[in-house]
Amino acid sequence: MPADSFRVISNLQELRNLTADDLGAQRLAWSPMWLKAREWFQSKLDGLPIEHHYDAAGNSWTTLRGESDRALVLGSHLDSVPNGGWLDGSLGVLAGLEVLRGLSEDFQGKPPVTIRLVDWADEEGARFGRSLFGSSAFAGTHTVAVDRVRTDRDGVRLEDALRNCGVDVDRIGDASLERSHTAAYLELHIEQGPVLENMRLPLGVVLGTKGVERHAITFHGQEAHSGSTPMGVRRDALAAAAKLALEIRPIARKHPDAVATMGSVKTFPGIVTAVVGRCETTLDMRDLDAKVLASMLAEARAASERFASEEGCKVEWSKIWSIEPISFDSRLIEFCDEAIREVAGVSHRLPSGPLHDAAEVARMGVPTVMMFAQSLAGLSHNKAEDTKIDDLKMAVEAFDRLARKTVNWLSAPKTEG
Amino acid sequence: MPADSFRVISNLQELRNLTADDLGAQRLAWSPMWLKAREWFQSKLDGLPIEHHYDAAGNSWTTLRGESDRALVLGSHLDSVPNGGWLDGSLGVLAGLEVLRGLSEDFQGKPPVTIRLVDWADEEGARFGRSLFGSSAFAGTHTVAVDRVRTDRDGVRLEDALRNCGVDVDRIGDASLERSHTAAYLELHIEQGPVLENMRLPLGVVLGTKGVERHAITFHGQEAHSGSTPMGVRRDALAAAAKLALEIRPIARKHPDAVATMGSVKTFPGIVTAVVGRCETTLDMRDLDAKVLASMLAEARAASERFASEEGCKVEWSKIWSIEPISFDSRLIEFCDEAIREVAGVSHRLPSGPLHDAAEVARMGVPTVMMFAQSLAGLSHNKAEDTKIDDLKMAVEAFDRLARKTVNWLSAPKTEG
Repeated sequence: MPADSFRVISNLQELRNLTADDLGAQRLAWSPMWLKAREWFQSKLDGLPIEHHYDAAGNSWTTLRGESDRALVLGSHLDSVPNGGWLDGSLGVLAGLEVLRGLSEDFQGKPPVTIRLVDWADEEGARFGRSLFGSSAFAGTHTVAVDRVRTDRDGVRLEDALRNCGVDVDRIGDASLERSHTAAYLELHIEQGPVLENMRLPLGVVLGTKGVERHAITFHGQEAHSGSTPMGVRRDALAAAAKLALEIRPIARKHPDAVATMGSVKTFPGIVTAVVGRCETTLDMRDLDAKVLASMLAEARAASERFASEEGCKVEWSKIWSIEPISFDSRLIEFCDEAIREVAGVSHRLPSGPLHDAAEVARMGVPTVMMFAQSLAGLSHNKAEDTKIDDLKMAVEAFDRLARKTVNWLSAPKTEG
Repeated sequence: MPADSFRVISNLQELRNLTADDLGAQRLAWSPMWLKAREWFQSKLDGLPIEHHYDAAGNSWTTLRGESDRALVLGSHLDSVPNGGWLDGSLGVLAGLEVLRGLSEDFQGKPPVTIRLVDWADEEGARFGRSLFGSSAFAGTHTVAVDRVRTDRDGVRLEDALRNCGVDVDRIGDASLERSHTAAYLELHIEQGPVLENMRLPLGVVLGTKGVERHAITFHGQEAHSGSTPMGVRRDALAAAAKLALEIRPIARKHPDAVATMGSVKTFPGIVTAVVGRCETTLDMRDLDAKVLASMLAEARAASERFASEEGCKVEWSKIWSIEPISFDSRLIEFCDEAIREVAGVSHRLPSGPLHDAAEVARMGVPTVMMFAQSLAGLSHNKAEDTKIDDLKMAVEAFDRLARKTVNWLSAPKTEG
């Protein structure tokens, strides 16, 4: 039987009632509320012919064994940012559970391929600043040495917080053992942006996750008295930064899906009576095409040097983090497109600006695709995050169809070997 | 006999040795080091036929009684910012002392008019954020009610710090009693800017202090995810602020002496992954002409509204503080110009961007002028603050000539009544 979208919505509401307060969802990874959410999730598995375990990185695996060991993995995350929304992550886990339940019923507990549902640990990275924690351990891209000494706002170290949840930081690499037999990965998520809403579409196929170039850029000028320093002799670090803040926009706008953001500006000494001597900024640029991203970065760098020179300043770049663009599987993109068209009549293909656990799985070479459900007003990481109930129903229905198409594909003789 | 410029420089060095550490001068008003500087100053009065007292606001008055009660007042301040320079304020007090000494000797202790030297209390306002403390009490523009509860970084209240220095905050208005018979006011100060150095001139005549318009300007846009929000739908508060940061420059440059500064920019949420939802900035604009200043303010306000509208933001202005331009006395400007030309060959007239105690005296209607000595690299409020020794000597010599010209003017029969 097809997935019961009413049960998914009712479960989402139940989870919200259990784990949100007046400010929003409080399922911060490695916190008691998160553990409570996971315990509640396990109670929802009662009566299903499944096995459940946590892996070495704290990922929660629910396995419905099929005729073949080849596994279709459905995944998302139950953790939230502090004061988060009711759908970010939870929608994918609870829709995945419903799909698994439906397949179990249709195949009398033994589908042609194995179906696994994963609730990744600490997707958000909201407490220790390291997102995609569990999925990167699974993918083997995790760097324990760097992360173990990270601390939260209260000074608690990551390794101690993990130990309290039964995870040994020295062993999280063992999560890669879960990779064997993984044949495909599907993830349903809310868009967290305004694209589908602006197009009045409930659902979209995600082409991949954009590459990200994230840099700290500091302009060094000369602090000077705002009253005694004539305009013509100033070396104003803020002026150079302001030019760059404006210039990154035409650089991004040359490309249809590219974005560029200056998210933080700090001025030093930062007082009303002094010309800014030092201005620290951050730049975040994203595109699905690695060549486009590289050219944007080069243009921004050249522009920053030009502006520094114009203002008698020096500019200094320091990379914060970067990741290459990750494209999803073309076959699964077609299946997803079909499934959406069957349910909603019309589909749309779009890249994801935000990263997702699916990116970690895809970069290992596992055929992967994501489906997006429309977000209202593009809001997320916020208690106002919402999606129309009709759109949620269509999302569950289309995701169920995508899973069934994928099961058929994986179990067809031509795809074996 | 003319003022002994060597003694002034030697006194400045002695004061520095007594009250500076490796980080610079530490004569913060109402601190033990400031009291020590004032005690040292009093020791320099030994043998002079003068009277000395502190007024109700803590201003230090040294009076050489003349044939007439009409008084020429010479003034500046011994207090410094933390980690300050050796010349800011001290030069004016110690040059004034030398001028007073020379006049006393020349007139056998009885010059034609009374000569008074004032060391104003707390010119800098570095501890409690209220500059021109003593001179505004003298001028009657002080607002005790607002200031008494101000606290320093350690939470000490202004009124308690004053009491420790023998000043009762409820009585500081009595400093206005010192105003009677004040006929003219002269102040020598370092420029604290680069204008004279760029013109290769040792000395300048100050035309007045610029008016100041100081405002907090906040742009309200929409916080959004840097990855999922397309460029075309953003309401980026930083973009609006960046446009204003650049636009205030051509607005100021239309006028030869005007300045406009955005000294502080704060971004909220201020993280690398979010479009700026709120951007708080400060604007400081100055000019000697009230009409020019008003037109600059109107242009900046209109520009901010245009930029807010272009970026889908709202803009909000809140006045921090303002003061009207204060022009010095035309007769004293001429005397100062003459004195400088006699000593240095060439003079230059310029407005002061920074405020000075002289502005408080001038706004009461007392004929006032200031003389500036060149600052190296425009530096001040910094231990690197410096002036060439030759320029300091010329400054003392020219200031002495200015004082004598003023004494002659005040004592000439035609100026009586």
